[in-house]
Amino acid sequence: MKDKTFLMIPGPTPVPERVLLEIAKHPMGHRSSEFSKILESVYSDLKYVFQTSNDVIVYTSSGTGAMDAALSNLINEGDKVLCLAIGNFGQRWAKIAEGLGAQVEKIEVEAGKAINPDELKAVLAKDVNKEIKLVTLTQNETSTGVTNDVKTLVSIIKEHGALSVVDGVTSIGAMDCKMDEWGIDVLVSGSQKGFMIPPGLAFLAASEKAWAVHKECKRPDFYFNWTTNRKSVLENSTAFTPAVNLISGLKVALEMMKEEGLENIIARHTKLAKGLRAALKAMGLTLFVEDEAIASTSITAVLPPEGISVPDIRKIMKNDYDIVVANGQNKLKDKIFRMGTLGFVSERDVITAVGALEATLYKLGHKFELGAGVATLIKYMNK
Amino acid sequence: MKDKTFLMIPGPTPVPERVLLEIAKHPMGHRSSEFSKILESVYSDLKYVFQTSNDVIVYTSSGTGAMDAALSNLINEGDKVLCLAIGNFGQRWAKIAEGLGAQVEKIEVEAGKAINPDELKAVLAKDVNKEIKLVTLTQNETSTGVTNDVKTLVSIIKEHGALSVVDGVTSIGAMDCKMDEWGIDVLVSGSQKGFMIPPGLAFLAASEKAWAVHKECKRPDFYFNWTTNRKSVLENSTAFTPAVNLISGLKVALEMMKEEGLENIIARHTKLAKGLRAALKAMGLTLFVEDEAIASTSITAVLPPEGISVPDIRKIMKNDYDIVVANGQNKLKDKIFRMGTLGFVSERDVITAVGALEATLYKLGHKFELGAGVATLIKYMNK
Repeated sequence: MKDKTFLMIPGPTPVPERVLLEIAKHPMGHRSSEFSKILESVYSDLKYVFQTSNDVIVYTSSGTGAMDAALSNLINEGDKVLCLAIGNFGQRWAKIAEGLGAQVEKIEVEAGKAINPDELKAVLAKDVNKEIKLVTLTQNETSTGVTNDVKTLVSIIKEHGALSVVDGVTSIGAMDCKMDEWGIDVLVSGSQKGFMIPPGLAFLAASEKAWAVHKECKRPDFYFNWTTNRKSVLENSTAFTPAVNLISGLKVALEMMKEEGLENIIARHTKLAKGLRAALKAMGLTLFVEDEAIASTSITAVLPPEGISVPDIRKIMKNDYDIVVANGQNKLKDKIFRMGTLGFVSERDVITAVGALEATLYKLGHKFELGAGVATLIKYMNK
Repeated sequence: MKDKTFLMIPGPTPVPERVLLEIAKHPMGHRSSEFSKILESVYSDLKYVFQTSNDVIVYTSSGTGAMDAALSNLINEGDKVLCLAIGNFGQRWAKIAEGLGAQVEKIEVEAGKAINPDELKAVLAKDVNKEIKLVTLTQNETSTGVTNDVKTLVSIIKEHGALSVVDGVTSIGAMDCKMDEWGIDVLVSGSQKGFMIPPGLAFLAASEKAWAVHKECKRPDFYFNWTTNRKSVLENSTAFTPAVNLISGLKVALEMMKEEGLENIIARHTKLAKGLRAALKAMGLTLFVEDEAIASTSITAVLPPEGISVPDIRKIMKNDYDIVVANGQNKLKDKIFRMGTLGFVSERDVITAVGALEATLYKLGHKFELGAGVATLIKYMNK
């Protein structure tokens, strides 16, 4: 049987039917009053999800585009930048900064760990002349399923005086991120994650402090230029022709998010991920991130049982049950697999995934109490 | 009656139903083998439409993103650049180049005119030390409906030795543009034009000569970086998460284009635009571009009759006939209106548009022989 694929990867994530149907409509003129009304609604609702009063720019690009947009509007050649890298996406910040000619310093940790706030404090304390202009960090590291304590890290950065630039690609709309209350200076996200729409849009918001630094940026990128893009946001327009169909879909998705309520969405993600973790352990599997305090609530990385390979697990999950789970990236390829509980995912979906994974491991000869995963999950969800 | 809108603007353009239905499907994983097959087909078919053997990079961005990608991968601070600007989109090349720190020289013409090859020859002849690194030009200037003679202009640039960088956003897939045969070094286009899909994708191809210049570029933009993006093209992949739904739609649209055949597509555009022009003249209207040799076959700009305003024409066309035509841009706002015959447009569509425009002008009190537009169009199409 075909066409029943269920994506349990960190993105793209499942898209609600009413969003898909909206996307399927004939495109509108991007300078029409009808489309301007859609943008007005989208710009307003994005502030709600970003928990900010700052304007949120919508770029037609992948999430990496918004990361590029963040740094290419702030960094001048020779600037000092500190990158907190706990995985591939943290390293991406460093690569972008280096490409812009910044002097990059990094705090790196072993895969599966989060940034230790004391280490950040110590590094920033050494910067007595306040030369570090900005610090990049990742709320949820997609490659490992680790969540940094953004609130604490940002407060330390704030005390130093540098700008905090946060990757919220797989966290916004899934876990709590209070841009204004926590004092985040630049926050970016992408559409195919917590926002429940297909890939193609990315979002960026900046604090007044960040805007002041942007004003001193000598060569902001033309397409991603904050100034020209914000000017259009204030006119309920876009600087260049946007992906109008995706934006119409986004309007519907944001309405669904408001209907459910951000707090409920965050609680749902937490519950589903914790239930999944309990189920996986009950099946005799080892979680890549054991520490509950830093375990992601949108992506869970798992080690395969001894003697069973990640490709075999992914293959049976895909071929027999039409469920796509992600492999590890780079050095973690074939060492872990990753399951997303991100975006449009319900309790039923997690029961489905755990059931299918039990069947997969059973076929592959893994020795465990068949049914224990589903049983543990159901108990967790109803306790 | 609602939901019967017909876009006759220079983009977004109408999208075939089978493309819309493809876009409405649940997103695929962008690293799956299924999606890789779609990319393989898309990358191959794009070469056909670009008439090139060079790799064609697909960016998730607007067409302006690809223009940014062209220059930010070639220009170093202080480089000399010559921009041939016959309208707003020609000026955009100059703005991007200036933002990158280039020394920009321009050849500008009055709105409605094309670049005179002799003037280009004269300007380049003065550059005896061959300091001009690249020349930007526009095949079809969307703001005025003027087409430059790219073949001749590129041959002059080639003789000088500079790179030719061509905006083919509203020309590729509508008018002839032989990238390899004419020796174009960089060619860009966008999805919501000749390619018959909604906005959100942009395309770029570069000659070997351009790739060599790229290698010397000190600060290529991270997101738009040619090297990393082409590496992924060669692996039937993308560097970052692309707009997968739009790419699936593009695959279908490209198949439709191959089915019709590029020569037939170009002939259709020519015939429809020339028929439209004849009809407009028969209705007593003045064309903004009188000279048939430089008149665009994808966008036709028209002056309103004396005493009748552009906003009134656009309003009645929209409210009573659900047809969207574009206003002029900047200085030409309310001075001209623009009708697209671009992409998924048939003879029937042009009959529809001419009929509705006759009705609109009739309501607005324009004195002309009612029916003359449609009659002239039908005769033109059947001569």
